[in-house]
Amino acid sequence: MAVISLSLDNPVFSAFVTYAVLVIMKTMIMSFFTAYQRMTNKAFSNEEDVASFGKKLEVTRYHPGVERVRRCHQNDLENVIPFVLLGLLYVASGPSLGAALLHFRAFTVARFLHTLVYLNSVRQPARALCFLCGIVVNISMAVATLSKGTF
Amino acid sequence: MAVISLSLDNPVFSAFVTYAVLVIMKTMIMSFFTAYQRMTNKAFSNEEDVASFGKKLEVTRYHPGVERVRRCHQNDLENVIPFVLLGLLYVASGPSLGAALLHFRAFTVARFLHTLVYLNSVRQPARALCFLCGIVVNISMAVATLSKGTF
Amino acid sequence: MAVISLSLDNPVFSAFVTYAVLVIMKTMIMSFFTAYQRMTNKAFSNEEDVASFGKKLEVTRYHPGVERVRRCHQNDLENVIPFVLLGLLYVASGPSLGAALLHFRAFTVARFLHTLVYLNSVRQPARALCFLCGIVVNISMAVATLSKGTF
Repeated sequence: MAVISLSLDNPVFSAFVTYAVLVIMKTMIMSFFTAYQRMTNKAFSNEEDVASFGKKLEVTRYHPGVERVRRCHQNDLENVIPFVLLGLLYVASGPSLGAALLHFRAFTVARFLHTLVYLNSVRQPARALCFLCGIVVNISMAVATLSKGTF
Repeated sequence: MAVISLSLDNPVFSAFVTYAVLVIMKTMIMSFFTAYQRMTNKAFSNEEDVASFGKKLEVTRYHPGVERVRRCHQNDLENVIPFVLLGLLYVASGPSLGAALLHFRAFTVARFLHTLVYLNSVRQPARALCFLCGIVVNISMAVATLSKGTF
Repeated sequence: MAVISLSLDNPVFSAFVTYAVLVIMKTMIMSFFTAYQRMTNKAFSNEEDVASFGKKLEVTRYHPGVERVRRCHQNDLENVIPFVLLGLLYVASGPSLGAALLHFRAFTVARFLHTLVYLNSVRQPARALCFLCGIVVNISMAVATLSKGTF
């Protein structure tokens, strides 16, 4: 049963690697969106950041544009990280390649759409649906994995 | 030494899978508690969420009930994610099943209690003790793992 | 090809374990820095925390010293967790030990410096450079890993 391993010999793991890296990179890109919002709106949280722009600015505690990106990033941390962790354990539980690909692809599409919808303030329930789709994938992987573990 | 592997053949990994999935799911459930708080208190962060409720509401920056759930969720991200990552590396370091189960169970109980205590505003030091118990497990796994790694 | 495995038999994994544990522990220590800031500044977020100090304090929503540590901790969550996840997948993709050590060491040094610079409010671009160095390592590992995965 060497095929159920966390190595690239296992086609399920090989697929997981791709989707996991894609959603982690998407999450990391939010940092640059935040930086862009801070710079174009001159809304910085730290005195040393304000100073480096040589202007007589105050530190900004709340800027709507910055906070929207921050909330989107936070939502990624709350959903993408669990996806990667659960996904890894799910792969180890030996799912079929077809079932696994369905989970990985649905989550990846849902989370890229979630960001698109969030950053463009698309009217609800667009964001709620993207969010729920990701959650359903995570719960499905959790249940499938849990049924293989021991106590 | 195939037994020290990240596969279900390894009883330590098999146990880890169960506890890891439980604490990740507990963390994810916080999203629903937040949504519940936002809806019952009509405290939304996004204009499009307010609009979807068809009321003349303002965006809410701070609501005590929402923020309590958020802080609890954040504390999970800061402790449960490290537990799962350290746990995975700890399993690979080949601990005994007894020692590993002690770590996994103590952490899981401590973090479920932490949420219960946090959401019900139980008086201190209840929350501090739950938090510290989780931290001690994480540090213990980190030290045990570190002693097996190379530089 | 048993050498490309997530076990201590694999020297790349063995090295990864060390650096991963170091940066996760560094991230967790931020909790204690936050607690220290809250106590010395008497700036607590929860009524039960205020009560446990027996003083007639109010809950504090924003304290500059606390928030600086919080932002530093948050930045760790946004960067260190992706490092550990990407690193694990990167190790499974079978890099050379030399290339892997370069990535792990550069990231570890960059993130310890990042914290030092952040908590001491060192003038920019010190923090930006530490941040970017970590990001570059993560992107490099992501790209190397992605080239091995399947869709």
